[in-house]
Amino acid sequence: MHTRSYLTVRYAETDRMGFVHHSNYPIWYEVGRTDYIKSYGISYSDIEKAGILMPLTNLSCNFLKPANYEDKIVVRTWAIELKAAHIQFTYTVKKINEDGTQEELGYGSTEHGIIDSKTLRPVSLKKRMPELYEKIKATF
Amino acid sequence: MHTRSYLTVRYAETDRMGFVHHSNYPIWYEVGRTDYIKSYGISYSDIEKAGILMPLTNLSCNFLKPANYEDKIVVRTWAIELKAAHIQFTYTVKKINEDGTQEELGYGSTEHGIIDSKTLRPVSLKKRMPELYEKIKATF
Amino acid sequence: MHTRSYLTVRYAETDRMGFVHHSNYPIWYEVGRTDYIKSYGISYSDIEKAGILMPLTNLSCNFLKPANYEDKIVVRTWAIELKAAHIQFTYTVKKINEDGTQEELGYGSTEHGIIDSKTLRPVSLKKRMPELYEKIKATF
Amino acid sequence: MHTRSYLTVRYAETDRMGFVHHSNYPIWYEVGRTDYIKSYGISYSDIEKAGILMPLTNLSCNFLKPANYEDKIVVRTWAIELKAAHIQFTYTVKKINEDGTQEELGYGSTEHGIIDSKTLRPVSLKKRMPELYEKIKATF
Repeated sequence: MHTRSYLTVRYAETDRMGFVHHSNYPIWYEVGRTDYIKSYGISYSDIEKAGILMPLTNLSCNFLKPANYEDKIVVRTWAIELKAAHIQFTYTVKKINEDGTQEELGYGSTEHGIIDSKTLRPVSLKKRMPELYEKIKATF
Repeated sequence: MHTRSYLTVRYAETDRMGFVHHSNYPIWYEVGRTDYIKSYGISYSDIEKAGILMPLTNLSCNFLKPANYEDKIVVRTWAIELKAAHIQFTYTVKKINEDGTQEELGYGSTEHGIIDSKTLRPVSLKKRMPELYEKIKATF
Repeated sequence: MHTRSYLTVRYAETDRMGFVHHSNYPIWYEVGRTDYIKSYGISYSDIEKAGILMPLTNLSCNFLKPANYEDKIVVRTWAIELKAAHIQFTYTVKKINEDGTQEELGYGSTEHGIIDSKTLRPVSLKKRMPELYEKIKATF
Repeated sequence: MHTRSYLTVRYAETDRMGFVHHSNYPIWYEVGRTDYIKSYGISYSDIEKAGILMPLTNLSCNFLKPANYEDKIVVRTWAIELKAAHIQFTYTVKKINEDGTQEELGYGSTEHGIIDSKTLRPVSLKKRMPELYEKIKATF
Protein backbone atom coordinates (compact mmCIF):
# COMPACT_ATOMS: atom_id res chain seq x y z
CA MET A 1 0.00 0.00 0.00
CA HIS A 2 1.19 3.50 -0.75
CA THR A 3 -0.34 6.95 -1.21
CA ARG A 4 0.28 9.68 -3.76
CA SER A 5 0.35 13.36 -2.77
CA TYR A 6 0.25 16.07 -5.40
CA LEU A 7 1.77 19.52 -5.05
CA THR A 8 2.97 22.42 -7.17
CA VAL A 9 6.41 23.93 -6.52
CA ARG A 10 6.11 27.26 -4.69
CA TYR A 11 8.28 30.25 -5.58
CA ALA A 12 9.47 30.47 -1.97
CA GLU A 13 10.76 26.88 -2.24
CA THR A 14 13.35 27.86 -4.86
CA ASP A 15 16.82 29.24 -4.12
CA ARG A 16 19.32 31.38 -6.05
CA MET A 17 20.51 28.29 -7.93
CA GLY A 18 17.11 28.52 -9.65
CA PHE A 19 15.80 25.18 -8.35
CA VAL A 20 13.98 23.91 -5.27
CA HIS A 21 16.16 24.16 -2.16
CA HIS A 22 16.89 20.70 -0.75
CA SER A 23 15.45 21.57 2.69
CA ASN A 24 11.95 21.41 1.13
CA TYR A 25 12.13 17.70 0.39
CA PRO A 26 11.68 16.64 4.05
CA ILE A 27 8.68 18.99 4.12
CA TRP A 28 7.26 17.30 1.02
CA TYR A 29 7.90 13.89 2.61
CA GLU A 30 5.88 15.15 5.57
CA VAL A 31 3.02 16.12 3.26
CA GLY A 32 3.20 12.56 1.93
CA ARG A 33 3.25 11.10 5.47
CA THR A 34 0.19 13.17 6.43
CA ASP A 35 -1.76 11.71 3.52
CA TYR A 36 -0.41 8.21 4.10
CA ILE A 37 -1.50 8.11 7.74
CA LYS A 38 -4.89 9.54 6.76
CA SER A 39 -5.32 6.56 4.44
CA TYR A 40 -5.57 4.39 7.59
CA GLY A 41 -8.69 6.31 8.58
CA ILE A 42 -6.97 8.42 11.23
CA SER A 43 -5.21 11.76 10.94
CA TYR A 44 -1.78 12.48 12.36
CA SER A 45 -3.52 15.31 14.30
CA ASP A 46 -5.64 12.61 15.97
CA ILE A 47 -2.54 10.59 16.86
CA GLU A 48 -1.09 13.68 18.54
CA LYS A 49 -4.40 14.30 20.34
CA ALA A 50 -4.06 10.75 21.69
CA GLY A 51 -0.78 11.85 23.30
CA ILE A 52 1.67 10.35 20.82
CA LEU A 53 4.43 12.12 18.89
CA MET A 54 6.56 10.69 16.10
CA PRO A 55 9.74 12.79 15.93
CA LEU A 56 12.37 11.95 13.34
CA THR A 57 15.45 10.04 14.40
CA ASN A 58 16.87 9.82 10.89
CA LEU A 59 16.35 11.54 7.54
CA SER A 60 17.88 10.44 4.26
CA CYS A 61 17.33 12.20 0.90
CA ASN A 62 18.76 11.39 -2.51
CA PHE A 63 18.57 14.03 -5.23
CA LEU A 64 18.67 12.94 -8.86
CA LYS A 65 17.28 15.92 -10.82
CA PRO A 66 16.28 19.46 -9.82
CA ALA A 67 12.69 20.68 -9.46
CA ASN A 68 11.60 24.06 -10.82
CA TYR A 69 9.03 26.67 -9.80
CA GLU A 70 5.50 25.65 -10.88
CA ASP A 71 6.52 22.03 -11.53
CA LYS A 72 3.80 19.50 -10.75
CA ILE A 73 5.14 17.03 -8.21
CA VAL A 74 3.89 13.69 -6.94
CA VAL A 75 5.20 12.24 -3.68
CA ARG A 76 4.68 8.50 -3.19
CA THR A 77 4.79 7.37 0.45
CA TRP A 78 4.74 4.03 2.20
CA ALA A 79 5.73 2.52 5.55
CA ILE A 80 8.41 -0.16 5.37
CA GLU A 81 8.98 -1.05 9.00
CA LEU A 82 6.99 -0.88 12.21
CA LYS A 83 8.28 -1.94 15.58
CA ALA A 84 6.85 -1.20 19.01
CA ALA A 85 8.22 2.33 19.30
CA HIS A 86 9.73 2.88 15.87
CA ILE A 87 8.39 3.42 12.35
CA GLN A 88 10.10 3.94 9.01
CA PHE A 89 8.70 5.53 5.84
CA THR A 90 10.03 5.64 2.30
CA TYR A 91 9.28 8.24 -0.38
CA THR A 92 9.79 8.86 -4.06
CA VAL A 93 9.44 12.33 -5.57
CA LYS A 94 8.55 12.59 -9.25
CA LYS A 95 7.86 15.46 -11.61
CA ILE A 96 4.76 15.16 -13.76
CA ASN A 97 5.52 16.48 -17.25
CA GLU A 98 2.91 18.24 -19.34
CA ASP A 99 2.49 15.13 -21.51
CA GLY A 100 1.71 13.10 -18.37
CA THR A 101 5.02 11.23 -18.24
CA GLN A 102 6.90 11.24 -14.95
CA GLU A 103 10.56 11.77 -14.10
CA GLU A 104 12.05 10.69 -10.78
CA LEU A 105 13.63 13.66 -9.02
CA GLY A 106 14.72 11.80 -5.91
CA TYR A 107 13.85 9.43 -3.12
CA GLY A 108 14.36 9.19 0.60
CA SER A 109 13.34 7.77 3.91
CA THR A 110 12.57 8.87 7.45
CA GLU A 111 12.79 6.95 10.71
CA HIS A 112 10.68 8.01 13.66
CA GLY A 113 10.56 7.29 17.32
CA ILE A 114 7.09 6.82 18.80
CA ILE A 115 6.97 8.72 22.08
CA ASP A 116 4.56 9.98 24.70
CA SER A 117 3.88 13.71 24.27
CA LYS A 118 4.10 14.35 28.03
CA THR A 119 7.09 12.23 29.08
CA LEU A 120 8.84 12.27 25.66
CA ARG A 121 9.69 8.60 26.34
CA PRO A 122 9.16 5.71 23.92
CA VAL A 123 5.69 4.17 23.98
CA SER A 124 4.34 1.04 22.37
CA LEU A 125 2.04 1.96 19.49
CA LYS A 126 0.83 -1.65 19.71
CA LYS A 127 -0.49 -1.00 23.21
CA ARG A 128 -1.59 2.60 22.86
CA MET A 129 -3.25 2.42 19.44
CA PRO A 130 -3.61 -1.32 18.68
CA GLU A 131 -6.07 -0.79 15.84
CA LEU A 132 -3.75 1.58 13.97
CA TYR A 133 -0.79 -0.72 14.69
CA GLU A 134 -2.53 -3.72 13.17
CA LYS A 135 -3.69 -1.73 10.14
CA ILE A 136 -0.12 -0.63 9.37
CA LYS A 137 1.27 -4.13 10.04
CA ALA A 138 -1.29 -5.60 7.63
CA THR A 139 0.09 -3.53 4.74
CA PHE A 140 3.55 -5.11 4.74
CA MET B 1 15.80 52.24 23.54
CA HIS B 2 16.41 49.80 20.74
CA THR B 3 18.47 46.66 20.10
CA ARG B 4 20.60 45.58 17.17
CA SER B 5 20.65 41.96 15.96
CA TYR B 6 23.29 40.76 13.53
CA LEU B 7 22.82 37.96 11.02
CA THR B 8 24.33 36.66 7.79
CA VAL B 9 22.02 35.83 4.86
CA ARG B 10 21.59 32.06 4.49
CA TYR B 11 21.56 30.35 1.11
CA ALA B 12 18.16 28.83 1.90
CA GLU B 13 16.76 32.35 2.39
CA THR B 14 17.31 33.25 -1.26
CA ASP B 15 14.90 32.49 -4.11
CA ARG B 16 15.27 32.05 -7.88
CA MET B 17 15.24 35.83 -8.32
CA GLY B 18 18.69 35.64 -6.72
CA PHE B 19 17.81 37.68 -3.62
CA VAL B 20 16.35 37.00 -0.19
CA HIS B 21 12.72 35.88 -0.38
CA HIS B 22 10.43 38.41 1.30
CA SER B 23 8.96 35.81 3.68
CA ASN B 24 12.25 35.84 5.61
CA TYR B 25 11.88 39.44 6.76
CA PRO B 26 9.19 38.63 9.36
CA ILE B 27 11.54 35.88 10.61
CA TRP B 28 14.38 38.41 10.90
CA TYR B 29 12.02 40.79 12.71
CA GLU B 30 11.34 37.93 15.13
CA VAL B 31 15.07 37.49 15.70
CA GLY B 32 15.16 41.21 16.50
CA ARG B 33 12.16 40.90 18.85
CA THR B 34 13.81 37.99 20.69
CA ASP B 35 16.89 40.12 21.38
CA TYR B 36 14.82 43.21 22.21
CA ILE B 37 12.76 41.41 24.85
CA LYS B 38 15.92 39.85 26.27
CA SER B 39 17.27 43.39 26.80
CA TYR B 40 14.57 43.79 29.49
CA GLY B 41 16.21 40.99 31.45
CA ILE B 42 13.62 38.37 30.53
CA SER B 43 13.49 35.99 27.58
CA TYR B 44 10.45 35.50 25.40
CA SER B 45 10.71 31.81 26.37
CA ASP B 46 10.18 32.92 29.99
CA ILE B 47 7.12 34.98 29.01
CA GLU B 48 5.67 31.88 27.37
CA LYS B 49 6.52 29.79 30.44
CA ALA B 50 4.50 32.34 32.44
CA GLY B 51 1.49 31.41 30.31
CA ILE B 52 1.47 34.35 27.91
CA LEU B 53 1.58 34.30 24.10
CA MET B 54 2.03 37.26 21.78
CA PRO B 55 0.64 36.22 18.38
CA LEU B 56 0.75 38.70 15.51
CA THR B 57 -2.40 40.57 14.58
CA ASN B 58 -0.70 42.64 11.89
CA LEU B 59 2.51 42.53 9.87
CA SER B 60 3.77 45.27 7.59
CA CYS B 61 7.03 45.14 5.58
CA ASN B 62 8.51 47.67 3.20
CA PHE B 63 11.24 46.55 0.83
CA LEU B 64 13.66 49.14 -0.55
CA LYS B 65 16.66 47.12 -1.80
CA PRO B 66 17.33 43.39 -2.14
CA ALA B 67 19.57 41.37 0.17
CA ASN B 68 22.01 38.79 -1.19
CA TYR B 69 23.46 35.49 0.06
CA GLU B 70 26.24 36.08 2.63
CA ASP B 71 25.28 39.75 3.16
CA LYS B 72 25.84 40.97 6.71
CA ILE B 73 22.54 42.29 8.07
CA VAL B 74 21.62 44.32 11.11
CA VAL B 75 18.03 44.42 12.38
CA ARG B 76 17.18 47.32 14.69
CA THR B 77 14.13 46.71 16.90
CA TRP B 78 12.11 48.82 19.29
CA ALA B 79 8.64 48.86 20.85
CA ILE B 80 6.50 51.85 19.96
CA GLU B 81 3.21 51.14 21.71
CA LEU B 82 2.09 49.13 24.70
CA LYS B 83 -1.48 48.83 25.87
CA ALA B 84 -2.96 46.34 28.31
CA ALA B 85 -3.25 43.44 25.84
CA HIS B 86 -1.51 44.82 22.79
CA ILE B 87 2.07 45.65 21.82
CA GLN B 88 3.62 47.05 18.66
CA PHE B 89 7.22 46.78 17.44
CA THR B 90 9.08 48.57 14.66
CA TYR B 91 12.13 47.33 12.74
CA THR B 92 14.70 48.55 10.27
CA VAL B 93 16.82 46.14 8.24
CA LYS B 94 20.19 47.35 6.98
CA LYS B 95 23.03 45.76 5.06
CA ILE B 96 26.52 46.29 6.44
CA ASN B 97 28.93 46.87 3.57
CA GLU B 98 32.54 45.68 3.70
CA ASP B 99 33.71 49.26 4.33
CA GLY B 100 31.41 49.44 7.36
CA THR B 101 28.82 51.75 5.81
CA GLN B 102 25.19 50.70 6.02
CA GLU B 103 22.37 50.67 3.47
CA GLU B 104 18.73 50.48 4.47
CA LEU B 105 17.08 47.46 2.83
CA GLY B 106 13.66 47.95 4.36
CA TYR B 107 11.60 48.56 7.46
CA GLY B 108 8.42 47.22 8.99
CA SER B 109 6.26 46.75 12.03
CA THR B 110 4.35 44.03 13.84
CA GLU B 111 1.34 44.30 16.13
CA HIS B 112 0.69 41.58 18.69
CA GLY B 113 -2.15 40.56 20.90
CA ILE B 114 -1.19 39.53 24.44
CA ILE B 115 -3.14 36.39 25.30
CA ASP B 116 -3.31 33.59 27.82
CA SER B 117 -1.73 30.41 26.46
CA LYS B 118 -4.54 28.21 27.85
CA THR B 119 -7.67 30.25 27.08
CA LEU B 120 -6.21 32.14 24.07
CA ARG B 121 -8.05 35.22 25.40
CA PRO B 122 -6.56 38.69 25.91
CA VAL B 123 -4.79 39.21 29.21
CA SER B 124 -3.45 42.34 30.82
CA LEU B 125 0.35 42.32 30.74
CA LYS B 126 0.14 45.08 33.34
CA LYS B 127 -1.53 42.67 35.76
CA ARG B 128 0.24 39.45 34.82
CA MET B 129 3.79 40.75 34.45
CA PRO B 130 3.74 44.26 36.01
CA GLU B 131 7.52 44.52 36.24
CA LEU B 132 8.02 43.81 32.52
CA TYR B 133 5.11 46.13 31.67
CA GLU B 134 6.65 49.04 33.56
CA LYS B 135 10.10 48.41 32.06
CA ILE B 136 8.71 48.59 28.53
CA LYS B 137 6.55 51.63 29.35
CA ALA B 138 9.61 53.40 30.75
CA THR B 139 11.39 53.20 27.38
CA PHE B 140 8.89 55.34 25.48
CA MET C 1 -12.25 38.50 -11.29
CA HIS C 2 -10.49 36.52 -8.61
CA THR C 3 -9.03 33.02 -8.20
CA ARG C 4 -9.24 30.50 -5.38
CA SER C 5 -6.26 28.38 -4.38
CA TYR C 6 -6.68 25.40 -2.08
CA LEU C 7 -4.05 24.08 0.29
CA THR C 8 -3.71 21.95 3.41
CA VAL C 9 -1.65 23.24 6.35
CA ARG C 10 1.72 21.46 6.53
CA TYR C 11 3.25 20.36 9.82
CA ALA C 12 6.39 22.35 9.05
CA GLU C 13 4.25 25.51 8.77
CA THR C 14 3.30 25.37 12.46
CA ASP C 15 5.36 26.78 15.32
CA ARG C 16 5.63 26.05 19.06
CA MET C 17 2.53 28.18 19.70
CA GLY C 18 0.69 25.29 18.00
CA PHE C 19 -0.57 27.32 15.03
CA VAL C 20 0.72 28.32 11.59
CA HIS C 21 3.68 30.69 11.84
CA HIS C 22 2.83 34.08 10.35
CA SER C 23 5.74 33.96 7.88
CA ASN C 24 3.81 31.35 5.88
CA TYR C 25 1.02 33.75 4.91
CA PRO C 26 3.13 35.65 2.35
CA ILE C 27 4.04 32.23 0.90
CA TRP C 28 0.36 31.32 0.67
CA TYR C 29 -0.34 34.69 -0.96
CA GLU C 30 2.34 33.78 -3.49
CA VAL C 31 0.59 30.46 -4.19
CA GLY C 32 -2.55 32.53 -4.80
CA ARG C 33 -0.68 34.95 -7.08
CA THR C 34 0.75 32.06 -9.11
CA ASP C 35 -2.76 30.72 -9.76
CA TYR C 36 -4.17 34.20 -10.38
CA ILE C 37 -1.60 35.04 -13.06
CA LYS C 38 -2.14 31.63 -14.65
CA SER C 39 -5.82 32.51 -15.00
CA TYR C 40 -4.74 35.11 -17.63
CA GLY C 41 -3.39 32.28 -19.77
CA ILE C 42 0.26 32.92 -18.90
CA SER C 43 2.37 31.53 -16.09
CA TYR C 44 4.55 33.66 -13.86
CA SER C 45 7.43 31.43 -15.03
CA ASP C 46 6.71 32.68 -18.57
CA ILE C 47 6.75 36.32 -17.39
CA GLU C 48 10.19 35.70 -15.88
CA LYS C 49 11.35 33.98 -19.07
CA ALA C 50 10.31 37.18 -20.88
CA GLY C 51 12.85 39.03 -18.71
CA ILE C 52 10.48 40.58 -16.17
CA LEU C 53 10.57 40.26 -12.39
CA MET C 54 7.93 41.44 -9.92
CA PRO C 55 9.67 41.83 -6.54
CA LEU C 56 7.64 42.98 -3.55
CA THR C 57 7.89 46.58 -2.44
CA ASN C 58 5.30 46.20 0.32
CA LEU C 59 3.63 43.38 2.24
CA SER C 60 0.72 43.76 4.61
CA CYS C 61 -0.93 40.90 6.54
CA ASN C 62 -3.80 40.97 9.01
CA PHE C 63 -4.35 37.95 11.23
CA LEU C 64 -7.80 37.33 12.68
CA LYS C 65 -7.79 33.66 13.74
CA PRO C 66 -5.07 31.00 13.86
CA ALA C 67 -4.73 28.12 11.38
CA ASN C 68 -3.92 24.58 12.54
CA TYR C 69 -2.04 21.63 11.07
CA GLU C 70 -4.16 19.77 8.45
CA ASP C 71 -6.67 22.65 8.16
CA LYS C 72 -8.10 23.06 4.67
CA ILE C 73 -7.36 26.59 3.48
CA VAL C 74 -8.63 28.66 0.56
CA VAL C 75 -6.72 31.74 -0.60
CA ARG C 76 -8.70 34.19 -2.72
CA THR C 77 -6.54 36.48 -4.88
CA TRP C 78 -7.21 39.45 -7.10
CA ALA C 79 -5.34 42.42 -8.58
CA ILE C 80 -6.59 45.82 -7.45
CA GLU C 81 -4.21 48.23 -9.15
CA LEU C 82 -1.99 48.17 -12.22
CA LYS C 83 0.22 51.01 -13.30
CA ALA C 84 3.06 50.97 -15.84
CA ALA C 85 5.68 49.47 -13.51
CA HIS C 86 3.64 48.65 -10.43
CA ILE C 87 0.97 46.10 -9.51
CA GLN C 88 -0.97 45.44 -6.33
CA PHE C 89 -2.73 42.25 -5.23
CA THR C 90 -5.18 41.57 -2.42
CA TYR C 91 -5.82 38.27 -0.64
CA THR C 92 -8.21 36.70 1.82
CA VAL C 93 -7.35 33.48 3.66
CA LYS C 94 -10.21 31.32 4.89
CA LYS C 95 -10.43 27.99 6.65
CA ILE C 96 -12.87 25.47 5.19
CA ASN C 97 -14.62 23.64 8.01
CA GLU C 98 -15.68 20.00 7.71
CA ASP C 99 -19.30 21.07 7.24
CA GLY C 100 -18.26 23.23 4.28
CA THR C 101 -18.66 26.59 6.04
CA GLN C 102 -15.75 29.01 5.88
CA GLU C 103 -14.09 31.20 8.51
CA GLU C 104 -11.89 34.15 7.60
CA LEU C 105 -8.44 33.72 9.13
CA GLY C 106 -6.95 36.90 7.72
CA TYR C 107 -6.38 39.12 4.73
CA GLY C 108 -3.55 41.07 3.20
CA SER C 109 -2.01 42.75 0.21
CA THR C 110 1.25 42.90 -1.70
CA GLU C 111 2.66 45.66 -3.89
CA HIS C 112 5.19 44.80 -6.56
CA GLY C 113 7.58 46.69 -8.75
CA ILE C 114 7.79 45.50 -12.36
CA ILE C 115 11.46 45.41 -13.33
CA ASP C 116 13.80 44.12 -15.99
CA SER C 117 15.59 40.94 -14.84
CA LYS C 118 18.93 42.12 -16.28
CA THR C 119 19.02 45.81 -15.31
CA LEU C 120 16.72 45.49 -12.25
CA ARG C 121 15.20 48.82 -13.37
CA PRO C 122 11.47 49.54 -13.74
CA VAL C 123 9.94 48.54 -17.05
CA SER C 124 6.54 49.26 -18.54
CA LEU C 125 4.44 46.10 -18.55
CA LYS C 126 2.19 47.96 -21.00
CA LYS C 127 5.07 48.10 -23.50
CA ARG C 128 6.75 44.80 -22.76
CA MET C 129 3.69 42.56 -22.43
CA PRO C 130 0.77 44.65 -23.81
CA GLU C 131 -1.57 41.67 -24.12
CA LEU C 132 -1.16 40.69 -20.45
CA TYR C 133 -1.41 44.35 -19.41
CA GLU C 134 -4.74 44.78 -21.20
CA LYS C 135 -6.12 41.51 -19.83
CA ILE C 136 -5.37 42.59 -16.24
CA LYS C 137 -6.70 46.11 -16.85
CA ALA C 138 -9.94 44.66 -18.25
CA THR C 139 -10.67 42.89 -14.95
CA PHE C 140 -10.98 46.07 -12.88
CA MET D 1 40.48 21.14 9.93
CA HIS D 2 36.94 22.07 10.86
CA THR D 3 34.95 25.24 11.53
CA ARG D 4 32.42 26.12 14.20
CA SER D 5 29.31 28.19 13.40
CA TYR D 6 27.20 29.65 16.18
CA LEU D 7 23.48 30.33 15.95
CA THR D 8 20.47 30.86 18.19
CA VAL D 9 17.27 28.90 17.52
CA ARG D 10 14.64 31.11 15.89
CA TYR D 11 10.97 30.94 16.86
CA ALA D 12 10.03 30.26 13.23
CA GLU D 13 12.28 27.17 13.29
CA THR D 14 10.08 25.43 15.88
CA ASP D 15 6.97 23.40 15.11
CA ARG D 16 3.86 22.41 17.08
CA MET D 17 5.79 19.60 18.76
CA GLY D 18 7.56 22.47 20.58
CA PHE D 19 11.02 21.74 19.17
CA VAL D 20 13.00 22.68 16.07
CA HIS D 21 11.50 21.19 12.91
CA HIS D 22 13.90 18.72 11.31
CA SER D 23 13.90 20.58 7.97
CA ASN D 24 16.03 23.30 9.59
CA TYR D 25 19.03 21.03 10.15
CA PRO D 26 20.05 20.99 6.46
CA ILE D 27 19.79 24.81 6.58
CA TRP D 28 22.08 24.88 9.64
CA TYR D 29 24.48 22.52 7.85
CA GLU D 30 24.50 25.04 5.01
CA VAL D 31 25.37 27.83 7.45
CA GLY D 32 28.24 25.61 8.59
CA ARG D 33 29.32 24.95 4.98
CA THR D 34 29.32 28.67 4.20
CA ASP D 35 31.70 29.33 7.09
CA TYR D 36 33.81 26.27 6.30
CA ILE D 37 34.41 27.31 2.69
CA LYS D 38 35.16 30.86 3.83
CA SER D 39 37.94 29.42 6.01
CA TYR D 40 39.77 28.58 2.75
CA GLY D 41 39.92 32.28 1.96
CA ILE D 42 37.13 32.18 -0.64
CA SER D 43 33.39 32.60 -0.21
CA TYR D 44 30.84 30.23 -1.70
CA SER D 45 29.42 33.34 -3.44
CA ASP D 46 32.79 33.68 -5.19
CA ILE D 47 32.70 30.01 -6.27
CA GLU D 48 29.29 30.64 -7.81
CA LYS D 49 30.57 33.80 -9.48
CA ALA D 50 33.28 31.61 -11.02
CA GLY D 51 30.49 29.60 -12.67
CA ILE D 52 30.41 26.61 -10.34
CA LEU D 53 27.45 25.22 -8.41
CA MET D 54 27.51 22.51 -5.75
CA PRO D 55 23.99 21.06 -5.57
CA LEU D 56 23.28 18.27 -3.09
CA THR D 57 23.10 14.71 -4.33
CA ASN D 58 22.58 13.24 -0.87
CA LEU D 59 21.54 14.46 2.57
CA SER D 60 21.67 12.42 5.74
CA CYS D 61 20.63 13.67 9.20
CA ASN D 62 20.58 11.87 12.53
CA PHE D 63 18.59 13.36 15.38
CA LEU D 64 19.53 12.49 18.95
CA LYS D 65 17.90 15.20 21.10
CA PRO D 66 15.52 18.05 20.30
CA ALA D 67 16.51 21.74 20.11
CA ASN D 68 14.36 24.46 21.67
CA TYR D 69 13.61 28.11 20.87
CA GLU D 70 16.48 30.39 21.99
CA ASP D 71 18.91 27.48 22.43
CA LYS D 72 22.52 28.35 21.60
CA ILE D 73 23.74 25.99 18.88
CA VAL D 74 27.15 25.22 17.47
CA VAL D 75 27.53 23.49 14.10
CA ARG D 76 30.90 21.87 13.45
CA THR D 77 31.68 21.31 9.76
CA TRP D 78 34.43 19.58 7.85
CA ALA D 79 35.02 18.09 4.39
CA ILE D 80 35.73 14.36 4.36
CA GLU D 81 36.04 13.58 0.67
CA LEU D 82 36.94 15.49 -2.47
CA LYS D 83 37.00 13.99 -5.94
CA ALA D 84 37.11 15.78 -9.26
CA ALA D 85 33.40 16.64 -9.40
CA HIS D 86 32.19 15.51 -6.01
CA ILE D 87 32.59 16.74 -2.44
CA GLN D 88 31.29 15.45 0.88
CA PHE D 89 30.85 17.33 4.16
CA THR D 90 30.11 16.12 7.67
CA TYR D 91 28.45 18.05 10.50
CA THR D 92 27.75 17.79 14.20
CA VAL D 93 25.12 19.94 15.89
CA LYS D 94 25.51 20.62 19.60
CA LYS D 95 23.60 22.68 22.12
CA ILE D 96 25.65 24.97 24.36
CA ASN D 97 24.21 24.90 27.87
CA GLU D 98 24.28 27.95 30.13
CA ASP D 99 27.15 26.41 32.13
CA GLY D 100 29.18 26.09 28.93
CA THR D 101 28.86 22.32 28.60
CA GLN D 102 27.71 20.94 25.26
CA GLU D 103 25.20 18.25 24.33
CA GLU D 104 25.16 16.59 20.93
CA LEU D 105 21.77 17.05 19.28
CA GLY D 106 22.61 15.25 16.07
CA TYR D 107 24.98 14.81 13.17
CA GLY D 108 24.79 14.43 9.44
CA SER D 109 26.45 14.65 6.08
CA THR D 110 25.87 16.09 2.62
CA GLU D 111 27.24 14.99 -0.72
CA HIS D 112 27.46 17.50 -3.56
CA GLY D 113 28.03 17.37 -7.26
CA ILE D 114 30.33 20.05 -8.65
CA ILE D 115 28.75 21.38 -11.82
CA ASP D 116 29.00 24.21 -14.32
CA SER D 117 26.30 26.84 -13.67
CA LYS D 118 25.54 27.21 -17.39
CA THR D 119 25.58 23.62 -18.64
CA LEU D 120 24.66 22.00 -15.27
CA ARG D 121 27.20 19.29 -16.15
CA PRO D 122 29.96 17.98 -13.88
CA VAL D 123 33.17 19.98 -13.92
CA SER D 124 36.57 19.26 -12.45
CA LEU D 125 37.19 21.53 -9.47
CA LYS D 126 40.83 20.53 -9.81
CA LYS D 127 40.94 22.16 -13.26
CA ARG D 128 38.59 25.07 -12.68
CA MET D 129 39.77 26.17 -9.23
CA PRO D 130 43.07 24.33 -8.66
CA GLU D 131 44.10 26.51 -5.74
CA LEU D 132 40.89 25.82 -3.81
CA TYR D 133 41.10 22.12 -4.74
CA GLU D 134 44.61 21.80 -3.32
CA LYS D 135 43.69 23.71 -0.15
CA ILE D 136 40.81 21.35 0.57
CA LYS D 137 42.89 18.26 -0.31
CA ALA D 138 45.60 19.43 2.06
CA THR D 139 43.19 19.31 5.02
CA PHE D 140 42.56 15.56 4.85
